[in-house]
Amino acid sequence: MKSLDALGITLPPPTAPVGSYLGAVRTGQLVFLSGHIAKKDGVPWAGRVGAEISREEATAAARSIAIDLLGTLHGAVGDLARVRRLVKLTVLVNGAPGFAEHHLVANGATDLFLEIFGAEAAPVRTSYGAQLPLNACVEIDLIAEVG
Amino acid sequence: MKSLDALGITLPPPTAPVGSYLGAVRTGQLVFLSGHIAKKDGVPWAGRVGAEISREEATAAARSIAIDLLGTLHGAVGDLARVRRLVKLTVLVNGAPGFAEHHLVANGATDLFLEIFGAEAAPVRTSYGAQLPLNACVEIDLIAEVG
Amino acid sequence: MKSLDALGITLPPPTAPVGSYLGAVRTGQLVFLSGHIAKKDGVPWAGRVGAEISREEATAAARSIAIDLLGTLHGAVGDLARVRRLVKLTVLVNGAPGFAEHHLVANGATDLFLEIFGAEAAPVRTSYGAQLPLNACVEIDLIAEVG
Repeated sequence: MKSLDALGITLPPPTAPVGSYLGAVRTGQLVFLSGHIAKKDGVPWAGRVGAEISREEATAAARSIAIDLLGTLHGAVGDLARVRRLVKLTVLVNGAPGFAEHHLVANGATDLFLEIFGAEAAPVRTSYGAQLPLNACVEIDLIAEVG
Repeated sequence: MKSLDALGITLPPPTAPVGSYLGAVRTGQLVFLSGHIAKKDGVPWAGRVGAEISREEATAAARSIAIDLLGTLHGAVGDLARVRRLVKLTVLVNGAPGFAEHHLVANGATDLFLEIFGAEAAPVRTSYGAQLPLNACVEIDLIAEVG
Repeated sequence: MKSLDALGITLPPPTAPVGSYLGAVRTGQLVFLSGHIAKKDGVPWAGRVGAEISREEATAAARSIAIDLLGTLHGAVGDLARVRRLVKLTVLVNGAPGFAEHHLVANGATDLFLEIFGAEAAPVRTSYGAQLPLNACVEIDLIAEVG
């Protein structure tokens, strides 16, 4: 695992749930994380991708969610070095009508994960368009395997 | 686990699949449940949330699905006391254009689960907007851990 | 398990990911597969179901994705006879406004799986409408249990 410091990343605290659920649940060797919406300056990063938000911005938003997911994962397992591999990401993109590049937005998250955990720890991924809570531009959830 | 009787809830029979799949599958200590759509008086509870269906109605629909999920889960494991914890809910809301409160609708389901199983058994959750089968207002699927 | 030959099916090679992720990840006895979009003649099978694509075509597209998923699953486990059961399918349908028969489209995939693996190996399923990458008409991901 690559040092987050070396990548200029400061691990945020776990994202607090905004309802009757948890941010992370461990079952066996799997840790499930709740859907995390994109935030900018601490508030929802809102807008439809391909309209108010460009694809480039959405890709940056996906990367920022990946960092938030790491914060929540760290809070759940105590040490990111215990993460054996990422298992699955679901990447939801708030696409304007006609948007069709959800997979490119998703690379914003998985590119960062590969840089940190290496290609051998890469997850599977499903990405598509959906209407999102608080009109967030991107939402991502994650399953990871821990040792 | 709190008694369903005390909450005035009668456990329904497992929801019958309407196609070539099962309502529940156990693998190891996990039980996966199929997406359950909202029903009212035995027929699909149809309409877009924020248009034909209010947010309050959708929240009640989410609660009613939670009860249907318990019926299916009971059928799969024989006794709800075997449920160690809820792992993950995916809550799909048939939002009218501009709807952005999927997370509040989702509380209709997870609030009930917390009341029944306690906060320590709470799941992670991902909620968003989607076009739903039979124009149902809400659809939810679930992963639970059993002992 | 029924022979693919007997069904006139030739197993395709694993679907290559188009980004920083894997087609399949094994964790414990579960194999997670990435979302696979429908393809026709090697290119994305594009269009909204209920508009440019009929429900019948979409059902055929779902069946063709099921075959692609088998190719990826075969690549991951070496031999489909190691598949103990299917656990979960998520079926995403690129529905035109007003489309409400996602569950019938999904049968295109699960009918084939039942024919191959038998009813006792059937998965749970969640199907709904979503905007899809490359405007594909259908996208499906899968979790299977292997021995």
